[in-house]
Amino acid sequence: MALVIDLNADLGESFGAWVLGDDDAMLRVVTSANVACGFHAGDPTTLRRTVARAAAGGVAVGAQVGYRDLAGFGRRRMDVAPDDLTADVLYQLGALEAMCRVAGTRVRYLKPHGALYNTAVTDEGQARAVVEAVLAYDPALPVIGLPGSALLRIAAAEGLGTVAEAFADRGYDAHGHLVPRSQPGALVTDPEVVAERVVRMVRDGVVTAVDGSEVAVAPRSVCVHGDTPGAVAVATAVREALRGAGAAVHAFTHR
Amino acid sequence: MALVIDLNADLGESFGAWVLGDDDAMLRVVTSANVACGFHAGDPTTLRRTVARAAAGGVAVGAQVGYRDLAGFGRRRMDVAPDDLTADVLYQLGALEAMCRVAGTRVRYLKPHGALYNTAVTDEGQARAVVEAVLAYDPALPVIGLPGSALLRIAAAEGLGTVAEAFADRGYDAHGHLVPRSQPGALVTDPEVVAERVVRMVRDGVVTAVDGSEVAVAPRSVCVHGDTPGAVAVATAVREALRGAGAAVHAFTHR
Amino acid sequence: MALVIDLNADLGESFGAWVLGDDDAMLRVVTSANVACGFHAGDPTTLRRTVARAAAGGVAVGAQVGYRDLAGFGRRRMDVAPDDLTADVLYQLGALEAMCRVAGTRVRYLKPHGALYNTAVTDEGQARAVVEAVLAYDPALPVIGLPGSALLRIAAAEGLGTVAEAFADRGYDAHGHLVPRSQPGALVTDPEVVAERVVRMVRDGVVTAVDGSEVAVAPRSVCVHGDTPGAVAVATAVREALRGAGAAVHAFTHR
Amino acid sequence: MALVIDLNADLGESFGAWVLGDDDAMLRVVTSANVACGFHAGDPTTLRRTVARAAAGGVAVGAQVGYRDLAGFGRRRMDVAPDDLTADVLYQLGALEAMCRVAGTRVRYLKPHGALYNTAVTDEGQARAVVEAVLAYDPALPVIGLPGSALLRIAAAEGLGTVAEAFADRGYDAHGHLVPRSQPGALVTDPEVVAERVVRMVRDGVVTAVDGSEVAVAPRSVCVHGDTPGAVAVATAVREALRGAGAAVHAFTHR
Repeated sequence: MALVIDLNADLGESFGAWVLGDDDAMLRVVTSANVACGFHAGDPTTLRRTVARAAAGGVAVGAQVGYRDLAGFGRRRMDVAPDDLTADVLYQLGALEAMCRVAGTRVRYLKPHGALYNTAVTDEGQARAVVEAVLAYDPALPVIGLPGSALLRIAAAEGLGTVAEAFADRGYDAHGHLVPRSQPGALVTDPEVVAERVVRMVRDGVVTAVDGSEVAVAPRSVCVHGDTPGAVAVATAVREALRGAGAAVHAFTHR
Repeated sequence: MALVIDLNADLGESFGAWVLGDDDAMLRVVTSANVACGFHAGDPTTLRRTVARAAAGGVAVGAQVGYRDLAGFGRRRMDVAPDDLTADVLYQLGALEAMCRVAGTRVRYLKPHGALYNTAVTDEGQARAVVEAVLAYDPALPVIGLPGSALLRIAAAEGLGTVAEAFADRGYDAHGHLVPRSQPGALVTDPEVVAERVVRMVRDGVVTAVDGSEVAVAPRSVCVHGDTPGAVAVATAVREALRGAGAAVHAFTHR
Repeated sequence: MALVIDLNADLGESFGAWVLGDDDAMLRVVTSANVACGFHAGDPTTLRRTVARAAAGGVAVGAQVGYRDLAGFGRRRMDVAPDDLTADVLYQLGALEAMCRVAGTRVRYLKPHGALYNTAVTDEGQARAVVEAVLAYDPALPVIGLPGSALLRIAAAEGLGTVAEAFADRGYDAHGHLVPRSQPGALVTDPEVVAERVVRMVRDGVVTAVDGSEVAVAPRSVCVHGDTPGAVAVATAVREALRGAGAAVHAFTHR
Repeated sequence: MALVIDLNADLGESFGAWVLGDDDAMLRVVTSANVACGFHAGDPTTLRRTVARAAAGGVAVGAQVGYRDLAGFGRRRMDVAPDDLTADVLYQLGALEAMCRVAGTRVRYLKPHGALYNTAVTDEGQARAVVEAVLAYDPALPVIGLPGSALLRIAAAEGLGTVAEAFADRGYDAHGHLVPRSQPGALVTDPEVVAERVVRMVRDGVVTAVDGSEVAVAPRSVCVHGDTPGAVAVATAVREALRGAGAAVHAFTHR
């Protein structure tokens, strides 16, 4: 049976005069683009351009929805009331959909950003608020998240498609959790090491944890970073290594 | 031949803790709701609620797009580059469309707000940028504007539907232009006088200008204010007077 | 010994076209104005006008600092990093100080707003971040807060002046804590009842809790609301009742 | 008589996760830092850090005030009412002043940013609104601007100090006006050429215009860019060339 994997990255995160990441280069490597929707990053012109280029390159566009917090880049947890969060997600989904529509494509999935992603791992109220938005908007829209998260669990229970992802360059502990960024081993930066880890995740279903143990993973998508200095090099190394290992790299929305 | 007219008002302009206007009352009077889209006013929860109530009441929803200027309520002209303005309009259209979608309706028309409305009367670059957004998004979407404006002229030349509107409570000069707000006669506040003016606009095709002359008008829609203290009373008086004069009050999108 | 008490209220919370509260009326009643600083509410023109009128009326101006969250009116807890929170408070303090300077006065105290106020009751990190800002800016600036809060405790430990406040129209439980807004008895709305409660707080040092027990309080300032429909009537009733009871109503900064 | 010149650059223009320019490197070259104040760029943490480093390095801090337009980086003209613009400038001045105060320095001058700078060249209403803010805040605060601008003319008439500046890397026409960015010759990019031009401006009082003619200039300050890829190299070349020509590079506020 053929190995198939998706590569996703956060894109469209520039804002006005401020440029973040090399979206054009990343769009030549990834198969799914988590495009910011304007609340944590992404002005309308950036969104339109990013979506147009993704569409032109055959990259699936997902809505990377976040908290309304430009100053904090959506990385600060906010106690948003569930109804307000649902409306915030709908607003962002629709805004990005317009950019997809004029580019001849459509939003293919949703992935929460930053603090909302992390909050939705354990906070059932916020996770459910996100799921409610997707259900109301389009129950055929899958959701990317952390395996075992409240988000994926509630989404699945409500009948949404769910996509478990692994992180190419993040350290894992023996329980399969991500090593917090404040601790040693949180980040893997060498492109070749990252690439080899991803190949093992995809081919063998395991990743080596920081304590040396082997942890089972089963990602349908692997997240590579789009905004770090070496982002393009790492993503390219990952993609090449996957090809070398005989894996097909396709958007998970691919049929 | 039966007299038919549409009544439109700006709604959905609350923002977070700040309430503006009595949307529920206005939605019982008007036939078209120009719902704010978040750039000059309107948080996502307000948008969702306003659209849901409009849909439930059979009121047509239009996208009231504006400049990105909450502090100025979109009333300050901004020299936004045409490409950026087109993207800003698309973003707002899509955001409101999501609220329509989950309410079982859709955006039926577009009307620029405040300074963008005024700028698009004479500024061909900005008028064209708005038209480009509508063309790319949905060429079947009509645009409300001032008769003789660059916006309606360019929209019509590009094949968009155009809807000329008159203002129920604004003074007109002998050339059919609105009296600037800084001058005497700019506003008519007595509900009965406003109602009678609207009846004459619709039944007789004329309005009495500030110099006493009669000016021809031919509105397909009449704009009533939604956010002034007496807004509901004025709008109600207008609607009752139109009914008394035998005019049918329907959304212009009605078929 | 004479009874002396301060009345404080949140003012300057309009934003652009959105008006909140009747600041002019409230400024004739209160002795300390917690003026918003632009992060949760308050545009610069509103701040300038409010401060000028406070100064003209002899009302002390305090900086009502909040989270950067206009859409949530600063009522949603945000996990702002301490250094960022300190900088946010400094920024707001300085912005309001400019308005004081041109009005011939100065910022006389600081009071956190909304979710920051509540968070600083128990969260030592955020409480300390606020205190750090005041220490760096002006160690002679007192801080208003809840008796027993982390904010007042840390402020006092660092040598800042602290002002314990009571709430005129909020219910208390038998432990002297505020009844959460979601529970019965959270709000007292009858102006005469509120006024009598405040007199007892000030004169007798007690308030009747929701279970009927008497709870000791010792406020140097009493907070009245500025933005509810009956705000002016309640505040006026409180002030008149205090006068009737022989209490002098002065800003706590008064000497 | 000794040649003395000031070098100014726009700094503190990062915002949250978005970094713009290499402020630390620029602060080792320039003598006056036009620090953003949060309306067009600059979050409070960035402002605090930039001001602290400027103060530590003996670089004078000026308030680089702009329109409230993060998405447009303050580069889009806005028709802000004069009273609102005055309040906006006061707010920004005060916010930056707080950062200066905690760094042991103070705001030493004001320079409008982007579209406000350009508008204040010819628009007397907006120029006067800026001047009114400075007069009310501190009439001892000088203003940097374009020679011959409405801003400097009105500032001087009102008794403010004025500092005429020249642009190191912008092309001039035969009338001494800047070549618009849309035209050839608008920018000079070669560090050596820029450096030589600045030396001629300072030593000889002339600059060669795009048509080859010599134009008289008499700057007290020269503006170098802080946010372009070669910004540090250009600024360093300018400073070295000035030293080589025997010019003393000092803040104009230096005594």
